[in-house]
Amino acid sequence: MAEGQAGQQAERSAQAITPRAMDYGQWYLDVVRAAQLAEHSAVRGCMVIRPHGYAIWEGMQRELDARFKATGHQNAYFPMFIPLSLLAKEEKHAAGFAKECAVVTHHRLKSIGGAVAVDPESKLDEPLVVRPTSETIIWEQFKGWIQSYRDLPILINQWANIVRWEMRTRLFLRTTEFLWQEGHTAHATEKEALEETWRMLGVYAEFAQSVMAVPVVRGRKTPGERFAGAVETLCLEGMMQDGKALQMGTSHYLGQNFSKSAGVQYLSAEGKLEYVYATSWGVSTRLVGALIMSHSDDNGLILPPKLAPIQVVVVPIYRTDEEKARVLEEGAKVAAELKAQGLAVRFDDREGFTPGAKYYEWEAKGVPLRVEVGPKDLEKGSLCVARRFVLEVAGESDGQRRKRSKSFLPRASALASIRPTLDAMQGELLERAAALREKRTKVIDGIEAYGEFFKGGGGFAWVHWAGGVEEEDQMAKRFETTVRCIPLPEDIPPSARGEGKCILTGKPSPQRVLMARSY
Amino acid sequence: MAEGQAGQQAERSAQAITPRAMDYGQWYLDVVRAAQLAEHSAVRGCMVIRPHGYAIWEGMQRELDARFKATGHQNAYFPMFIPLSLLAKEEKHAAGFAKECAVVTHHRLKSIGGAVAVDPESKLDEPLVVRPTSETIIWEQFKGWIQSYRDLPILINQWANIVRWEMRTRLFLRTTEFLWQEGHTAHATEKEALEETWRMLGVYAEFAQSVMAVPVVRGRKTPGERFAGAVETLCLEGMMQDGKALQMGTSHYLGQNFSKSAGVQYLSAEGKLEYVYATSWGVSTRLVGALIMSHSDDNGLILPPKLAPIQVVVVPIYRTDEEKARVLEEGAKVAAELKAQGLAVRFDDREGFTPGAKYYEWEAKGVPLRVEVGPKDLEKGSLCVARRFVLEVAGESDGQRRKRSKSFLPRASALASIRPTLDAMQGELLERAAALREKRTKVIDGIEAYGEFFKGGGGFAWVHWAGGVEEEDQMAKRFETTVRCIPLPEDIPPSARGEGKCILTGKPSPQRVLMARSY
Repeated sequence: MAEGQAGQQAERSAQAITPRAMDYGQWYLDVVRAAQLAEHSAVRGCMVIRPHGYAIWEGMQRELDARFKATGHQNAYFPMFIPLSLLAKEEKHAAGFAKECAVVTHHRLKSIGGAVAVDPESKLDEPLVVRPTSETIIWEQFKGWIQSYRDLPILINQWANIVRWEMRTRLFLRTTEFLWQEGHTAHATEKEALEETWRMLGVYAEFAQSVMAVPVVRGRKTPGERFAGAVETLCLEGMMQDGKALQMGTSHYLGQNFSKSAGVQYLSAEGKLEYVYATSWGVSTRLVGALIMSHSDDNGLILPPKLAPIQVVVVPIYRTDEEKARVLEEGAKVAAELKAQGLAVRFDDREGFTPGAKYYEWEAKGVPLRVEVGPKDLEKGSLCVARRFVLEVAGESDGQRRKRSKSFLPRASALASIRPTLDAMQGELLERAAALREKRTKVIDGIEAYGEFFKGGGGFAWVHWAGGVEEEDQMAKRFETTVRCIPLPEDIPPSARGEGKCILTGKPSPQRVLMARSY
Repeated sequence: MAEGQAGQQAERSAQAITPRAMDYGQWYLDVVRAAQLAEHSAVRGCMVIRPHGYAIWEGMQRELDARFKATGHQNAYFPMFIPLSLLAKEEKHAAGFAKECAVVTHHRLKSIGGAVAVDPESKLDEPLVVRPTSETIIWEQFKGWIQSYRDLPILINQWANIVRWEMRTRLFLRTTEFLWQEGHTAHATEKEALEETWRMLGVYAEFAQSVMAVPVVRGRKTPGERFAGAVETLCLEGMMQDGKALQMGTSHYLGQNFSKSAGVQYLSAEGKLEYVYATSWGVSTRLVGALIMSHSDDNGLILPPKLAPIQVVVVPIYRTDEEKARVLEEGAKVAAELKAQGLAVRFDDREGFTPGAKYYEWEAKGVPLRVEVGPKDLEKGSLCVARRFVLEVAGESDGQRRKRSKSFLPRASALASIRPTLDAMQGELLERAAALREKRTKVIDGIEAYGEFFKGGGGFAWVHWAGGVEEEDQMAKRFETTVRCIPLPEDIPPSARGEGKCILTGKPSPQRVLMARSY
C-alpha cells in the first residue's frame, strides 16, 4: 500500500465507533467507515467499495471460484443489457423484477443550449434493462448451445455487477448496484438439476462455515419467498449479532420455466425432443456485510484469518534514532520471515504515527495479529504477539482480557506461533458465532411466548408452521418476522425436532421452521 | 469441463476455417467461432464471452493483476452509473464521449395494456450515463480522500465492464460493452504522475512481450489521438498478421484537468493548497482479439503457453475393448503426472469421438501440446508429443512440417520434455511475431514509395513527420493510415534513427514516427 493511502487511513479511523449496545445500526456504519470498507457515492443508492473492502471481496471470490471450478463449472460473461422483450418472456420473472429495473432508453448525448443533455434523436427502438439477474439473456444464448443430450449438462458461472433499483439502501447489505456471482446450469433431467441445486447450496454452506466462520441453517424458502421464476428456492440463513437473520446465498431449481420461455429443447438419447431443466445460484457483496456483522466488536472490524487481506501487521516501537535504526531492521526481518511462511504481512514503518495510533488503526481494520518490535524485545530476543480478539472468559474485566490477548515469546517461538494462532482464531470465531446463535435461539410453541421472545430482542425461533402466504403476512405484521426457511432435518437442533401443531393455525406440521427478523 | 459441453464443442469446431490468404476478416471470425471464444448476443453490439475465451481473459487478469499489485496498486470498485452533470464537468472529456453514451432514464417497468413497458412515472430527475470510463466518478470520490500531501499518492485499479455505444462492432476488437481494467492514480507532483504514466506503459509492454508474446512499440500519441481530457497519451502498438497495427494499451497523463474540474486540492508540506496530478491507464478484452490475430493460423487458434487455459491435452487411442482399458489407464496416469508438474492438463477420454476429431478440436482451440497414448506406445514404453506449431523452415512442405511437429519419445523423456517444450514455444511465438513484423516494416522517405508500400498491403512504415491534425487527416484520407505513435527512441529500429524531413510537408523532423493502418 502506498504511504499516502495509509496515512490518510490512520487519520480517518481515529473517529470513534458507536458501541453496539447503544445503536447497532450506527455501529455497523461506523465499523464500515473506520475500517474504510465502503462509502456512499455521488449516485443515489450506489456504493464505492474501497480497497480494504474490495480485498475482502477478492478473498471471497478466490475461495468461491476455486470451489465452483472444482465442481466442474466454467466462467463466462454475458451482456449486462437485456432487451425488454426478452426480460418479459418469463412472466413471473418479469413481474418479480419490474419495480426495480434501471432502463437504458438513449445512446447519445449532445450539447443543447450550451449544456450537455440526452440527445432525443438517439432513442432506442427497444429499451434495454440493466440486468437485475441474467436468466433470460443466458437462456436465450443456451438456445444456440443445446441441441442434443450430448450438449448437457452446461455448467456456467459469471462474476458480474447487478442493478436492482432500491429506495432504501445500506452499504453492502442493500445497494442499487452490487457485485455478485451467478451460476446458471442446464440439465437433461429434473433429478440432475435438483442435485445441482443442492450441491451448490452445500458449497455455499461449507464456504460460510469454514471460510467466513459463520454457522448457517440450510433449507427451502416458502412459496411466497421464492425467486421470481423458480420452482424451488434453497437458502442459507446466518444470525447476525443483533439476533436478526441474514440470507447468505440462494440456489434455485428453475424446472423448465426458462427453457420453455426461451424455447430450449434437446434431443434425448431416445430421439425425443425434451425441454431442458435449469438451476441458478448466487451470492453477492452482501456477504461482506454479513461478515462484518457476524464477528466485529466495538473497536471495529474482526476478520476470520482466511479472509483477512492483511493477516499480520508488524509495528516497530522506538524513541531514539539509534533505537529506530535497530528496530526497523529487526521489524523488516520479522516481516520478511513471516511472508516467507506464506502469510499476508504488512510492515508498518510509517513515520509520524505513534505506535498507539497504528494499533488503533489496524484493530479497526480487523487485522488478526499484531507483532510489536521494540528495543527491549531486541535485548531479550523476544517479540510481543497481540491477538485482535480472545474468547471471553466469564467474570473477566476488559483489562484482564486485553492482557490475555498479548503473548511475550522468544523470537523463534513467536514466529512459529503465528500460523497455529491464526488457525485457532479461525476456529474460535466460528465457535463464538455458534455460541451466540445458540444463546439467541429458542424452541417456541405458543404465540404469546413468541411475542415475548421478539419483544425481548428475539433471535432464531423454531416453531411449527402450517400457514400459507396470508398467514405469513400476518406474522410479518404482528411480529416483523418471516419464515426464514423450512430447514434440512439435520440442521434443526435436536431439541426442536419432531412433529407438532402450527403456532398460528393449530394445523398439523411435520417439522419446525426457522422464524426470525431479517435483513 | 462437463462432458456435454465438450461434446458440443467438438461438433461445432468441425466447421471449416477460411484461410487467411483468402479472407483475413472472415478467417478471424472463423477462428473465434471454431475455438468457441465468443459470439454475438441478443443485444446489438454486445458479445457473449464463452468459457474458452473467458479463461484466456482470466489468464490475462491474473498476470496483470499481479503486476499492478507488485507496483503498489490496490483494487477497488466504483459505481457504473455516472450522473450526467458529473460526466459533463470536464468539458473535453464529455465532448469526447458524448456520442457513445448509453443513458439510463427510468427505474421501473409496469404492465401497460397487458404488455411490459417502461413506467413513464419512473423517470429519473437526472439521467445516468453507463460509464464509458471512470475518471469523473472516481475523482469525485477522491475529493473526500485527499486533504494533505500525506494522503498521496493514491494508487487504485478497477476491473469492470464499460459501455461505449458502437455502430460497427467486431467480436473482442470493438463491442458496445467490454471488460477492462482502469488504473486511476493521484499524485502530489507532475514528476511523480509522469513517472507513473511511463511505469504503467512499461508494465503493459513487458506483459505484451513476455506473456502475450507480441512485440510492441512504445510511444506517445499525437494531440489528435489523445484520450479526451488527457495532457499526454502513451500507447503500445502491436502488428497483426495482416500488417495492421492494434493499440494494445494506453496510459494517460491527465495533468490537473480532472482534479480541477472535481475541485481536488491537497495541502502541501509547505502549507500551500495545490491541485492534484492524475494518471489513468487501461487494457481491455480487446487484447484477446490481439492475441488471436498475432499467432493463430489456418487451423485455428494458437496460444502462448503462459495464457493457454489447457496447456496439454492427453488423447487416448484404441480399437478393441482390451486396448481401451489399458490405454485409458495409462492416459489417466500420464495426465496425473503432468498435473503434478503444475501444468494445466485435460485428459480427453470422451467416447464417441475419433482421435482425429479430438486432434482437430484441440488444434482449433489452440492447446499448445498434445500427448497421444496408444497400444503401441504402451508396448514400447513411449509417448507421442505433438506441438501445435513449429517454426517454419524454408522450402519445407506442409507434410514435412507436420511430421517435424511430432516427437516419439521414451515415456520418462516425453514427460520431462513437456515444460521445456512449452517454454520454447512461448519464446518461438515472440520470435515468429517479431520476424513477421520485421518483414512488414519499412523505412520510407518519399510519399510515392509510401503509397506503394500501402498499396501492396503495407505494414509498419517509419517516416519523418512534422504535420498537425490537418495533415494527419490528409494521410488518413489518402492512405487510410494514421500516426500510431511517436515512439520512444529505443523502440525505433537502428536503421530508422536520426533526423530528417517530414514525408508530407518537408519540414524538419527530429525523429521518425510509426505509421500504419489500424484496428
